[in-house]
Amino acid sequence: MREDERAADLIFMRLALEEAAKAPSVGEVPIAALVVREGRILAQTHNYRELWQDPTAHAEVIVIRAAAAALGTWRLTGATLYVTVEPCAMCIGAIILARIDRIVFGAKDPKAGACGSLFNIPTEPKLNHQVLVVGGILEQESQSLLQSFFKQLRENAPVTHSRSTQ
Amino acid sequence: MREDERAADLIFMRLALEEAAKAPSVGEVPIAALVVREGRILAQTHNYRELWQDPTAHAEVIVIRAAAAALGTWRLTGATLYVTVEPCAMCIGAIILARIDRIVFGAKDPKAGACGSLFNIPTEPKLNHQVLVVGGILEQESQSLLQSFFKQLRENAPVTHSRSTQ
Repeated sequence: MREDERAADLIFMRLALEEAAKAPSVGEVPIAALVVREGRILAQTHNYRELWQDPTAHAEVIVIRAAAAALGTWRLTGATLYVTVEPCAMCIGAIILARIDRIVFGAKDPKAGACGSLFNIPTEPKLNHQVLVVGGILEQESQSLLQSFFKQLRENAPVTHSRSTQ
Repeated sequence: MREDERAADLIFMRLALEEAAKAPSVGEVPIAALVVREGRILAQTHNYRELWQDPTAHAEVIVIRAAAAALGTWRLTGATLYVTVEPCAMCIGAIILARIDRIVFGAKDPKAGACGSLFNIPTEPKLNHQVLVVGGILEQESQSLLQSFFKQLRENAPVTHSRSTQ
């Protein structure tokens, strides 16, 4: 990886973490995503499953829809998606369908991650689009956000959220 | 499978095929989905990727969002999702996240199907929700719709749609 690409990845992942940190105040799991193209942020959001009562409202799916709306096309060629946690099957599927070039994620998700943990969808050579995957960027910071959130949920029983990112 | 369940599956799949047949007139690939609970259709739609320029606008994702909105909850427990073509990774991921009990699909999708063709996501025992999968219901009718659509696209060159369901 080029030095300037690595520096950009750290900048955008820090912004994603800032976005994720806003989620618990509205009752959402602290996971956030950004879509960036040519150095410009097209969209950024955290999860909205609980507020919207929408099972598809993971940060990645929302941010892809917003970026496509911003550009007026479903093809997000040339874009990079940053997300604080490894995408699940739905989200990596959406990323591939959107023809995103590259994804950068923070923490692994052993329970549902589909970029090397539970599944490894992007490495399937028969897919009609290949996406480059970079994992582990600011992994500790991402994990700390999740751990604090779930610790607080456990302390504030009765629990109204499922204790999983999924 | 019980006889009455089989009969219901045929009824709902025929309705899904009727919905799919409407898609080409608005420039969409003829694939449609229904969410049914307790014998009642909660939502039905075909794909909207081109009209909305939204890469996530597969019939399954749209219908799940609509069914969740109709019920006021992201948990679609007890529901069956009917779709005319085998779901891709994004769609089966969304189905599992929505806690749908059962999916019934028509034609297989060898290029991107994630319920036995390219991937087999629902059989992963580590997932926190198991969905029952029934495939091949009115498979020929579903394939015929797709074949006619792509034949017509080829004949009406210049082609403005990608020649794939994905």
